[in-house]
Parts: sequence; structure tokens; C-alpha cells
Amino acid sequence: MIGWQPIEYEQAGAEVRAVYDDIRRTRGSDYLNAVWRVLANDPALLARSWRNVKEVMAPGALDPLTKELVYLAVSITNGCDYCIGTHGAAAQAKGMSPAQFGELLAVVGLANQLNAVVKGAAVPLDERYRG
Amino acid sequence: MIGWQPIEYEQAGAEVRAVYDDIRRTRGSDYLNAVWRVLANDPALLARSWRNVKEVMAPGALDPLTKELVYLAVSITNGCDYCIGTHGAAAQAKGMSPAQFGELLAVVGLANQLNAVVKGAAVPLDERYRG
Amino acid sequence: MIGWQPIEYEQAGAEVRAVYDDIRRTRGSDYLNAVWRVLANDPALLARSWRNVKEVMAPGALDPLTKELVYLAVSITNGCDYCIGTHGAAAQAKGMSPAQFGELLAVVGLANQLNAVVKGAAVPLDERYRG
Amino acid sequence: MIGWQPIEYEQAGAEVRAVYDDIRRTRGSDYLNAVWRVLANDPALLARSWRNVKEVMAPGALDPLTKELVYLAVSITNGCDYCIGTHGAAAQAKGMSPAQFGELLAVVGLANQLNAVVKGAAVPLDERYRG
Amino acid sequence: MIGWQPIEYEQAGAEVRAVYDDIRRTRGSDYLNAVWRVLANDPALLARSWRNVKEVMAPGALDPLTKELVYLAVSITNGCDYCIGTHGAAAQAKGMSPAQFGELLAVVGLANQLNAVVKGAAVPLDERYRG
Amino acid sequence: MIGWQPIEYEQAGAEVRAVYDDIRRTRGSDYLNAVWRVLANDPALLARSWRNVKEVMAPGALDPLTKELVYLAVSITNGCDYCIGTHGAAAQAKGMSPAQFGELLAVVGLANQLNAVVKGAAVPLDERYRG
Repeated sequence: MIGWQPIEYEQAGAEVRAVYDDIRRTRGSDYLNAVWRVLANDPALLARSWRNVKEVMAPGALDPLTKELVYLAVSITNGCDYCIGTHGAAAQAKGMSPAQFGELLAVVGLANQLNAVVKGAAVPLDERYRG
Repeated sequence: MIGWQPIEYEQAGAEVRAVYDDIRRTRGSDYLNAVWRVLANDPALLARSWRNVKEVMAPGALDPLTKELVYLAVSITNGCDYCIGTHGAAAQAKGMSPAQFGELLAVVGLANQLNAVVKGAAVPLDERYRG
Repeated sequence: MIGWQPIEYEQAGAEVRAVYDDIRRTRGSDYLNAVWRVLANDPALLARSWRNVKEVMAPGALDPLTKELVYLAVSITNGCDYCIGTHGAAAQAKGMSPAQFGELLAVVGLANQLNAVVKGAAVPLDERYRG
Repeated sequence: MIGWQPIEYEQAGAEVRAVYDDIRRTRGSDYLNAVWRVLANDPALLARSWRNVKEVMAPGALDPLTKELVYLAVSITNGCDYCIGTHGAAAQAKGMSPAQFGELLAVVGLANQLNAVVKGAAVPLDERYRG
Repeated sequence: MIGWQPIEYEQAGAEVRAVYDDIRRTRGSDYLNAVWRVLANDPALLARSWRNVKEVMAPGALDPLTKELVYLAVSITNGCDYCIGTHGAAAQAKGMSPAQFGELLAVVGLANQLNAVVKGAAVPLDERYRG
Repeated sequence: MIGWQPIEYEQAGAEVRAVYDDIRRTRGSDYLNAVWRVLANDPALLARSWRNVKEVMAPGALDPLTKELVYLAVSITNGCDYCIGTHGAAAQAKGMSPAQFGELLAVVGLANQLNAVVKGAAVPLDERYRG
């Protein structure tokens, strides 16, 4: 294992602290998820990752809960346990109900099922859906 | 290639026609997507697949557009061109705007990016997110 | 595109011809699938790939048709169109019936579905199935 | 983590108990795998998932062991540890020998290898295998 | 299909033109790959994607050719034909020889093979490699 | 779980010992990674896997560190924790610096991101990159 240990605020240099401060301000919480404290081993990677998250997950044409559901669906498909754990919690914090989580699992399961069936049967795209 | 040819309504047996009729009724359209006409080569597979789609994609705790966006996010992650083509069209028909599609791509891209980074850095799940 | 063109028997050097000869002998057919003619651009890669295929796909504790079905299931899951096309044909040549192909698609679809659902719900492995 | 706890028989409502009863009857065992007890948090998801498993994994044109091997091959490819654990055990219960498991791993490994090589070399599908 | 058409320089607004100009300057070529002209349908997505590419693919602790080989390895594993085509060409432009491409395919194939075998055999991580 | 236990040198038969001896000689270390001791449950699978690793990972047109980086990039994309742990350590042993590891993560993340975005936007391959 590559052995990157989490870097706590007190140990961090100025560049990392600036990112930590912005995460805390944006999240409205002092807690820093492990992902940020581990990525801090490469300050440029930390800064770029956070900047992308902040821009992409902000409210826009899609509301924040819908964005979390989409993020969670991808993470489930890829089998990223850490991402399922943290974005599942984030989705709940933004209002995902148990019934919505159950339906999300059902849709994610169905899509994975039919993605495979369609590829296996080599279904050609209907003329009407071509670009 | 396995060589399943699409089965048109006129060629289909009673079991397949019953499914085709239900698809047309539920969709409010006579057009049958190629996926159904190809899966009709195995009537049990067709019937089961359609039953699952009908149940899972129906309005519930999540609205139909959110379900389509989740389905599309999984299909993009899995690289199923047919599924991206048909469910992209379905999402548009249910109201997805170009701006929403752009943000969906951004979230799907971000999740795929960070899923990989998190796995590569072997980030341990924070105590507070454990079940 | 990297631009490896297929190398026909007549153009091939001695090392590649030896592999081609063995493929023809083993397959009992003069036709060389495109995959071999393309991999021939790197004779060591060709020789190693063929040696592995010959050893692994030979009859053993699992019969050749079962091996083809397993190979096809993986190729469908990974969405390799070339592999689905050629191994689908190989499975048919070894006796896969249309009904068996339909059931294969159903099992592959189900496994992809439940793999995702299980990961999304973070189901812990039952004590009794631990190593 | 989303925090779905397993639901034991005694805690379950009538809809869930009916599924549990059918699983026990079909399996010929009182033990309920964790997957069912966790999915019971969404009774419709549980009922649909079980119905699909029961239909798809039943003996048909493919025998139950072959179906388990295919299911296991997909689960290995997707890296679903829970699914590998439970379906590995199920395959053993249906007669998979250690030698068969070793050959299954070899075929699954080979398919994953050549799926990647073929995609990387952009091998075009031979005319003779087109639909 | 969602139907985003490529946007040529002449049709583009000021925000998109600024990105196009920077791509041309950085690449030292007037040609704009299709990916940029398609992503231009969402100017924020285009700008963010390009900024990330420019930062991440620049020379650093890893040289540009090594970065291209890594990018290509991921794209092959994910089966992204467009990405294989363009980054294969980019790797060649940066000096990848045919022999290096053949060895890259071999390593990518081997990793995909053994990733699957290791997951299927549930190999536990050696104590000495734990973080 | 299928329950293959590691086989130590002292318990192993002659065929397995011959492979173990070659691994020790080639690696210049007595330690045998768990993967080899587990695969030893199927001597043919062990012998074939080791032979492939030895051939493919040897110095050639690509140097050993570059090969490890490519192997690691694939293992991260596939989420194989064992493979990330052992090949991360191997890359470090061959000279990968912390800064190089950070840039590797950045490139792997970027490729996974844009692979998805490109597939979702259905970008057609530029004429100039076609084979």
C-alpha cells in the first residue's frame, strides 16, 4: 500500500490550509472528510479535486439532491465503497428518504442489468435516435 | 455475432404480442424500440425485462425524470451506446434541458474521476459514515 | 488510432507463421480471425495470447461449451463487441442453442443487476461464507 | 453509509415474510442470506429481486451449475466480494470442484485480458461474424 | 441520441473562443479535436475539462509520454474507442514506438487478467503491504 | 467464499515448488506474495500466471517502472485493492516518488472522467484518427 497518511489541519502547510478553510466554509462544518486529508499529500491534486467538486456539485440547472443521486449511482456502479458511504450520507443530509434510496437502488440495478443484456444481444440503435 | 433479428408485431406470437401491446399502451406510442423487438427472440426474457422496466421506472418516491437521469448516468459509466441513445432521448422527452444534460455529464465525469482517485489512494471510510 | 493493420499469412515472418499454422491445425480451419492477424504486429504478444487461449480453452474439468459461455458472459459484462461477436459464434459452433443464449443473457443481466444492488446496499458477507 | 440494518423474520411485516417463506421453501433451508434481510428494508425491491432470481436461476436450457458459474464469472469481473462469496458457495453446493473453480478463474482472467487487448488494438469484427 | 453537434470556431461565442485559442496555442496546431467542439455546447464543461487536461497532462514528476501511456491504459480498460483513438495518436506523436505499444497492450491485458483472478480467489493483502 | 488457503513452500508439491523457486530467484527475495501461495491451489494456473508476469513485466521497449505505473493505473481503474497494494509497493521499490504517485492518480482520475464524458456526449472519432 502506498502509505499516504491523513494530514490534519495542524500539520498542514499554507496551501493545504487554504483549501481546508474553503471546504469548512462551504460545507458549514469543521469536519474534514478523510478523502481531503489523504489527498493533501499532493497539494495540487487536493486543490484541483476540491475546485472541481465545488463547481460541479453546486446548485445549477440540476438541484443538489439530484446531483448527489447521480453521483451515488455512478459510485455504486463502480463499486467504490468509500464513495458510496460518504455520498450516501450526503444524499441523506440533502433529503433523500429511505423510499428514495430503495428506488435509486432499483433503477441502478435495472440499468446495469439492461446495459449488459443490450450489449450481449448487440441491439442496433434505432434510426430515430441517431444524432 | 449471435444473429437475433428484430421480430415485428406481425411476425410475433401471442405471448410477445401481449407484451408489445402493453408497451404501446404504457408508452402511448405505437413505436416499439429495437431492444424489445430483439429481446422478443426469447419471450420469457422480453416479458421479464419489460415487467421490471415498467415497475421500476414508474413514478414513485423519485419522479420519472430523476429516474431517467440516474439510468443515463449508469449507462454512460458502462459505455452502453444503445442505452445512452435511447435513455438520453427519453430524458429529453421528460424535460431534460441542454443545461441539465451538461451538468449531468459533469457530475458523471466527476464521480468517475474521484471514484478512481479514492480507490487509488486507499482512503479509509471515516468512522462517522460506518453503518 | 494506432493503425495496426492485419498481417496476412503471405506477408508474415517465420515466427508469426508458426503461430498461424498452430491456430489452423488446432481450429481445423484455414480461416484466421482478425484478432490474430492484428496481434501479429507484435509477434511475442501474438504467441503469448494464442498459447494462453490454447491452454485455457482446452477441454478439462470444464467442458469447452461451458468455457465459451463463461468467456461470453465476461465479454458481455465488459462490453467488448468484437469478443461478443466471435465468442458468440464459437459458442454456437460448440452447440449453444437459442434458448441457452437467452438464458445466458438473463443470468448475465441478473448478476450485473444484483452486483450493483448489493454494493449499493453495502451488504456484509454472512459469517458462514467467510474463508 | 446509508445504514440499512438486516431485518430478521420476527421483525418483518407480512409482505416480507411471504418472500422469506418462499425463499426458505425454494432453498430447502431456514437460513436467509444477508442480502435478503437487507433488501427487506424496501419490500418491493426485495420481492422483485427474489422473483427475478427464482425465475432466472431455475433449471432450464442451462443447468443450475452452469448458471452459477456464469453468475460467478460476472461477479468476479465486477469485483463484488459479497456476490463472489455467496455464489462461490452456491456453486460448490451444486457440485463445482476445486479443479473446475481453477479453470473458471483461468477463463475469466483470459477473457478480461483479451477483452482489453482487443479493444486497445481496435480489432474490427470479421465480416463473417456480422449480424 | 442527445444530439450535441460540434461547434466550429466561427460559430462560437467569446467564452468558447477563449478556450479554443488556448488549446491551439498550447497544442501548437490549429486543429481542434472533436471532443472540444462537442463539449463547447456547455461552455463551463468545456472550460473545466480543458483546464484539467492542461494542468494534469503538463510535464511534471512524470514525463508527458508516460502520462499518455497511463491515460491510454485507462481508456483501453474502460473501452472508450474515441479516447483510445485520440490518445493513441497523441502517444505516437510523443514518441511511442510500435514495440512500446505492443508492450503496453501486454501489460494492460495482464493487469486486467490478474485483477480478475485475484478478486475471484479472494486473496488477502499481505501484512507487509498494509498502510 | 471458495476457501482457497495459501500453500506454504513446505506443503507444496514439486510443480509448485519449481515455480516458487523461480519467483524467489527472479525477485531476489525469499518472500512469496500471497497471490502466488493462493493460486498454488491450481498448479497450472499458478505456473501460467507467473510465466505471463515474468515475460510481460521484464524490461523491454518500456522500462520496468513505466510498466508498473501502467499496471497500477489499470488496477486502480478496476478497483482491485490487493493489486493496488502490491503493485503500489512494487512501483515504489522501482523508484516511484510521492510526487509521481500523485501525478499518476491525477492522470488516472482525469482519464476515467473524460472517458465517461466522451461516451456520454457520443463524440464521433475525428476522421484523422481513423485507422
